[in-house]
Amino acid sequence: METHVGIVLLGCGVVGRGVLSILDQERDLLKQRTGIHFDVRHVVCRDVSKHADIAGVYQLTTNAEAAVTDPGVQIVVELMGGLEPAGGLIARALKAGKHVVTANKALLAVRSAELFKLAKNHHVSIGFEASCGGGIPIIDALTRGLLANRIDALLGIINGTCNFILSQMSQHGWGYEQALKEAQKLGFAEADPTMDVNGRDTAQKLAILASLAFNVAVGEQDIAVSGIDTLQADDIRYAAELGYAIKLLAIAERVGESLALRVHPTLVHNEDLLADVSGSFNAISVFGHAIGHQFFYGRGAGQMPTASAVVADLLGIAMGVIPHAFERLNVHTDLPPVKVLPPDQLESRYYLRVTTRDQPGAFAGITSALGRHGISLKSVHQNETDTGDNPVPVVVTTHRAKQGAMTAAIREIDALPSIQSPTICIRIIDQPTEFGQV
Amino acid sequence: METHVGIVLLGCGVVGRGVLSILDQERDLLKQRTGIHFDVRHVVCRDVSKHADIAGVYQLTTNAEAAVTDPGVQIVVELMGGLEPAGGLIARALKAGKHVVTANKALLAVRSAELFKLAKNHHVSIGFEASCGGGIPIIDALTRGLLANRIDALLGIINGTCNFILSQMSQHGWGYEQALKEAQKLGFAEADPTMDVNGRDTAQKLAILASLAFNVAVGEQDIAVSGIDTLQADDIRYAAELGYAIKLLAIAERVGESLALRVHPTLVHNEDLLADVSGSFNAISVFGHAIGHQFFYGRGAGQMPTASAVVADLLGIAMGVIPHAFERLNVHTDLPPVKVLPPDQLESRYYLRVTTRDQPGAFAGITSALGRHGISLKSVHQNETDTGDNPVPVVVTTHRAKQGAMTAAIREIDALPSIQSPTICIRIIDQPTEFGQV
Repeated sequence: METHVGIVLLGCGVVGRGVLSILDQERDLLKQRTGIHFDVRHVVCRDVSKHADIAGVYQLTTNAEAAVTDPGVQIVVELMGGLEPAGGLIARALKAGKHVVTANKALLAVRSAELFKLAKNHHVSIGFEASCGGGIPIIDALTRGLLANRIDALLGIINGTCNFILSQMSQHGWGYEQALKEAQKLGFAEADPTMDVNGRDTAQKLAILASLAFNVAVGEQDIAVSGIDTLQADDIRYAAELGYAIKLLAIAERVGESLALRVHPTLVHNEDLLADVSGSFNAISVFGHAIGHQFFYGRGAGQMPTASAVVADLLGIAMGVIPHAFERLNVHTDLPPVKVLPPDQLESRYYLRVTTRDQPGAFAGITSALGRHGISLKSVHQNETDTGDNPVPVVVTTHRAKQGAMTAAIREIDALPSIQSPTICIRIIDQPTEFGQV
Repeated sequence: METHVGIVLLGCGVVGRGVLSILDQERDLLKQRTGIHFDVRHVVCRDVSKHADIAGVYQLTTNAEAAVTDPGVQIVVELMGGLEPAGGLIARALKAGKHVVTANKALLAVRSAELFKLAKNHHVSIGFEASCGGGIPIIDALTRGLLANRIDALLGIINGTCNFILSQMSQHGWGYEQALKEAQKLGFAEADPTMDVNGRDTAQKLAILASLAFNVAVGEQDIAVSGIDTLQADDIRYAAELGYAIKLLAIAERVGESLALRVHPTLVHNEDLLADVSGSFNAISVFGHAIGHQFFYGRGAGQMPTASAVVADLLGIAMGVIPHAFERLNVHTDLPPVKVLPPDQLESRYYLRVTTRDQPGAFAGITSALGRHGISLKSVHQNETDTGDNPVPVVVTTHRAKQGAMTAAIREIDALPSIQSPTICIRIIDQPTEFGQV
């Protein structure tokens, strides 16, 4: 049984080229495994003249509208990124009865509910495995393999740029700016890295993953975000001395009836698998009531891993797997709104770096501010210094405390006369316990 | 849209009880996510009187034949294990037009080709996610998420019992027997642990995984197997000193046109994620031409993780996902026979522990035997000893060499007059390189 499926590629950048390369070079493999052959009917690009090398092989065009409504096209692959014209073209394709494959997390973080609904109404499906975690089949796991689980927590390193920068800072003792430059030089960060380093890209992906894991409508605005752009090399070094790596984590955690949703630099203990995720790799830890701890690791971005996820979705749609799941699953549309845990209520352990003058009573001032807010110390580290005049860093780790209490305590600490610069505060994540597991 | 699906459970042991618990306690969650409600029409057990606690809730019976052919049953869940009567009942169910979910790797390692074919002929499907890696959705990944990849290698820790025993040996410096006893005491090893510790259970799972990854028919007999039952505490200690953990790995690796297939204790470098897999956890590393390195980690056995995989398959079948994939995919049946790389041709690095008398020329005898077979040393470790009379262990690691050469060299070494006991030889695995990746 051989089936020909007509597709159109919207966008012919790095990932688009990767998709074409798999469809071309692995044509026989795909046909052997599934009996499916993809006919690339149009490749839509902004400037046809820039793709002269493939002009003889593919039908290049700038007319996206005509391409997505071509009656010979069954699946539209959107790889343009951004909100428009991508969003409008996807809507147009769905209305024309085409399935859609997209890697566009920015769009899905804003319009997924509307576009998924549109797809359902037109009895077509949207494959979006490539939108989160690159080649890691995490969307598939959440909507299939782990479907029998109440999910308790999902923690991920889902931005390769940030993880690469943090790995460089940790490995070489570099500051943020130097590590960013190196990442840009090696192609792991874009010329304008804002969306990556400020955590927004991570939050968009978390919105998608948390919706699927917890079956509530999560948007980017529900997530408390801080990025890596203010991190200092000192804290990465001190954390390492304490046995922790600093990672930008996306965290969605069930707390009673609410979800704690956040993206921030986090101290991860070296024994946690997430601490071993280096360079541009991504990883996602999922805790479910039946599976316990499950961990997925792989390349979260880049040409071929992302193309792998796109082609997997093409095959999934052509085999009927995604259309059936999409039609059946109630996890894409009509989700109840998320009940977000107020950030002040969030409990965790903390790493603090207080910069104080080494004078009588300075230390007591810090500890009593913490004590007044019910925060108890787990460890305190202050190295001997030569002179009494230079400000000294005091590194403190605490037991669990509510963020509200910590914020108040830091306000008091920073008002002490001995304090030389604002206190650095980074959350420490303890791996959630597996329920009912040994 | 709500759909009722009739199922029968063959076997009501630990995993069966786990399945019933998910179907009962997560009834609302499953219905909310998928609109599917499972009616457990029969629970087949060997001795009805042993399940009095659920006799009022489920229709208990010893009549498997009648249960699997009940016209109200759409899916048969086989959790009896073993070749018969499980195999016969599955065949019977397929012929009666029922889909099947099974966790039975022993059966699939022997009869998968025949049973998959039977399923295809009767337009039904077999879900077997629970047969390998417990709750880890690795079958799903190989047949869906990674489908666009030429797989280069698959390496796994896929027997929780062995990994638990090895972790105990490593952690406490225990010998094999003591660690086994502890594992049995804690329920991580069965009273008769033979199939686990001799590597056969691992080989059965590897046969299933390698068939899917490489699209060739792999049977247990194609796999060279050695277990952990002859491992000595000394080697775990020496390996640790060199920066390696010893793990029982299942390995399928493309070498030219052939597959190298084997299960054996292996030195895994501490920087490899596989070295961090402790206790009863499982993990699988997959290397694909597009995804690069991907790593899956989770609980590979136990009541609830396995039940999670079974219920995921039930949902997958009821949603139409598995039936469509199964019908479409050519990776289950009519696979060409595997071309196995002759073990002598297999190349790897090696760890050797040679036990020799500390006498002039002893060391030269060892190194020249290796040299004669073109094997070069990477490191040599011999601690100072007090007396010249006691045999001393010399620990050697080598560069890459063919197994045939190593076997011949060891034969010569062990024939040297200074040698006190047979040389221990364990392979060192270097993580395959990712192709085309940075």
